[in-house]
Amino acid sequence: MNTAVDFTLNVLPRPMPAAMSEALRARFGERFATALAVREQHGRDESPFDAPPPEAVVFCESTEDVAFVVAAAAEHRVPVIPYGAGSSLEGHLLAVQGGVSVDVSRMARVLRLDADDLTVTVQAGVTRMQLNREIKDSGLFFPIDPGADATLGGMSATRASGTNAVRYGTMRENVLALTVVTASGEVIRTGTRARKSSAGYDLTRLMVGSEGTLGVITEVTLKLHPLPESVAAAVCSFDDATAAVDTVIAIIQMGVPIARCELMDANAVIAVNRHDKLGLAEKPMLLMEFHGSEASVAEQAGTVQELAAEHGGTAFQWATTPEERTRLWTARHHAFLSGLQLRPGCRAVTTDCCVPISGLADAVTQALAEAEAAGLPHFIVGHVGDGNFHVAYLIDPALPEEREAAERLNQQLVQRAIAAGGTCTGEHGIGLHKQGFLVDEAGAGAVAMMRQIKQALDPHNIMNPGKIFAL
Amino acid sequence: MNTAVDFTLNVLPRPMPAAMSEALRARFGERFATALAVREQHGRDESPFDAPPPEAVVFCESTEDVAFVVAAAAEHRVPVIPYGAGSSLEGHLLAVQGGVSVDVSRMARVLRLDADDLTVTVQAGVTRMQLNREIKDSGLFFPIDPGADATLGGMSATRASGTNAVRYGTMRENVLALTVVTASGEVIRTGTRARKSSAGYDLTRLMVGSEGTLGVITEVTLKLHPLPESVAAAVCSFDDATAAVDTVIAIIQMGVPIARCELMDANAVIAVNRHDKLGLAEKPMLLMEFHGSEASVAEQAGTVQELAAEHGGTAFQWATTPEERTRLWTARHHAFLSGLQLRPGCRAVTTDCCVPISGLADAVTQALAEAEAAGLPHFIVGHVGDGNFHVAYLIDPALPEEREAAERLNQQLVQRAIAAGGTCTGEHGIGLHKQGFLVDEAGAGAVAMMRQIKQALDPHNIMNPGKIFAL
Repeated sequence: MNTAVDFTLNVLPRPMPAAMSEALRARFGERFATALAVREQHGRDESPFDAPPPEAVVFCESTEDVAFVVAAAAEHRVPVIPYGAGSSLEGHLLAVQGGVSVDVSRMARVLRLDADDLTVTVQAGVTRMQLNREIKDSGLFFPIDPGADATLGGMSATRASGTNAVRYGTMRENVLALTVVTASGEVIRTGTRARKSSAGYDLTRLMVGSEGTLGVITEVTLKLHPLPESVAAAVCSFDDATAAVDTVIAIIQMGVPIARCELMDANAVIAVNRHDKLGLAEKPMLLMEFHGSEASVAEQAGTVQELAAEHGGTAFQWATTPEERTRLWTARHHAFLSGLQLRPGCRAVTTDCCVPISGLADAVTQALAEAEAAGLPHFIVGHVGDGNFHVAYLIDPALPEEREAAERLNQQLVQRAIAAGGTCTGEHGIGLHKQGFLVDEAGAGAVAMMRQIKQALDPHNIMNPGKIFAL
Repeated sequence: MNTAVDFTLNVLPRPMPAAMSEALRARFGERFATALAVREQHGRDESPFDAPPPEAVVFCESTEDVAFVVAAAAEHRVPVIPYGAGSSLEGHLLAVQGGVSVDVSRMARVLRLDADDLTVTVQAGVTRMQLNREIKDSGLFFPIDPGADATLGGMSATRASGTNAVRYGTMRENVLALTVVTASGEVIRTGTRARKSSAGYDLTRLMVGSEGTLGVITEVTLKLHPLPESVAAAVCSFDDATAAVDTVIAIIQMGVPIARCELMDANAVIAVNRHDKLGLAEKPMLLMEFHGSEASVAEQAGTVQELAAEHGGTAFQWATTPEERTRLWTARHHAFLSGLQLRPGCRAVTTDCCVPISGLADAVTQALAEAEAAGLPHFIVGHVGDGNFHVAYLIDPALPEEREAAERLNQQLVQRAIAAGGTCTGEHGIGLHKQGFLVDEAGAGAVAMMRQIKQALDPHNIMNPGKIFAL
């Protein structure tokens, strides 16, 4: 068991030589920024970790811009850290070995919408909400929705998912192809717009989830989905989280094609009630959505309502207008920020395990009991249709014993998830935080294979070094 | 454009030293076979290529057996060629550089069924039909169905799909984890039973589709799906293939969750009528299946029947009993073998391109026109819901000009598919046949990255050498 999580920077930063900064300044002018405020803004994310900021930030506007920066970094052996929306939860953006932050947020164009093929190609800095706004007249939508309005480049790099994954899959299933700047500054394309292919190694899936350690993603080709003819959302309260989770297990095992199936524990409901001025019953709650034809939605909803009633579900409420639905789902997406406000000044240590669904009720119940016993403020939200849930422990950053307690709870939870056939991270990635867990989960042999790939594709270890594994 | 397809063996075989054969004989006894008949049976597949047989065949019964063979091969730098059902269409099994065939067909146990989690773990030699027989009382099924009754190890290695992929995805989406013997003879596990994960590089997806060139797959953990409450199949005839394909495009674009959507051209229908004694109208035909609740199936079918009628579809016929459905789908799965009988003594050169669906009608129409113009007997079947179709050119193996003509047609077809944003292979893999096409499709930079991975994970090039790229 690898329980040690070491955030200290045990490697020396690799400073940028003057020749490199001159080359970048010559090409990028004011888009090459070294002001402390800009660097600091690019040197933190939503994780609870601290690190020195990057040495410089380059605001790229094209794949060629990114290739120029990476080629210079390769020449001078300087770390490159891709930056999108800054919403990582696992320290992916932190300049733990120094280097240049490659900001792709200005690469925000939808390049090509092929509505007939249900595909779209975007620059890496397009955010998920922007994409859905820009394609809204096509009759199509992109379902993957992590809480934050993340960029599609960042979502690809962390293999993100969200509330719709139970029906539509994660980034793993929805990225068709990528444009990637490799560690030598070359530009490759990893796939085509065909919906399936057996042509060689699956470089797309290798890059999806590689957390910037194998290349910088600059363009993303995605599957889109037809907007459902009919949508209905519902909430239902339960006396305890176990009953809620057991309802979900029954829904999945019956094959109901539910689109969203989210758990909020009582604390999370309290938080969103306060933040979004809602009047939800402050008990464990499922928040669900059904997509399909009118008849199909009615049928799914009927089945689920029966299953919920069998498990003691009460206060089953429909959100039938688009406005009501948006209000509920906006509240759900605010849950993380709302939850932080349960304890002013706190930071959150978040867990992200995902288990085979038969182990979900036990995993959630034990996590809750342990958090209560430890006396740490906490809340739980979960994409429970996938077996994925997040405990957020709200710690006082001034009290190291609280962080230690949260880490200890996280470790117990992850070890149980792994023992149950699950994973330490369903959607946030390894980053800085879970490197020991990765070895526990995948085994030394599999991690050694990952390192062989990293070494082969990035021999000078310039691509987001220190993330996934501390090389 | 890389049109040259060179089947000549331009590398010397790497003979097995006596020390290795003695070690294998000592461990495996009669399961280490060198009889010519056994070697020849393991030295051919369903591809039109010829190569010398492997030097020996080892009938493995466990992951440890495979690891022993690979460790010996690594020590002696001898090629290892995994063998399952022998149903490859692209020469994957051919011992083009000599070596040992590792037969996993006796590794045919279902190791662990977790019906509550909708997952199963099998040994690599379990075939898809065997799996469905063994789990039939669980209320679950495994949908991926290439024509042959292939092994799940082989299906993983070629990233196979089949008729259900339009709804259930391919092996890419349905393999959760693998046990793999690496090129050094170590055993790794590439994932967990969780439905999603962001834990490090996606080794599962890297191995899926790697055609035995990165390791030998010995166990496969798969997603299963609830058996639909209701199933209905239908056939519908059209005056030309374009009308049939246009119907499919409309179905997909409307988001109808159709489970299967197959095209057979008139020649394919003639072939299955003869072989399976059916009385189908000998015109281009769609063969479809709908899965869901009774109401949902009725609704899907109604929508599709309307769309077919709008495109001139006639002779819409329902197969409502399980027996009728099985008869139709068995005929469809026989199409390749039935088609071969259209020209006794022939061999087939098969194409496998897959295009974004808006380009499908053009691709099929041009392929048909060119085959007619060339005067080569042919038939077309296609998983058209995915944009994937196969032309089989039936050539007389004694007439080299016919093979050349077929290869020329294939090249034209593939170049058009790539230009349309598609792939040279939807589900059969690269093998020996499509190495030039892979470069055309992926680009030299992406193929160079694949080679870097190959080199890193198999430095002595012993894992199925000469496949995907001629290293």
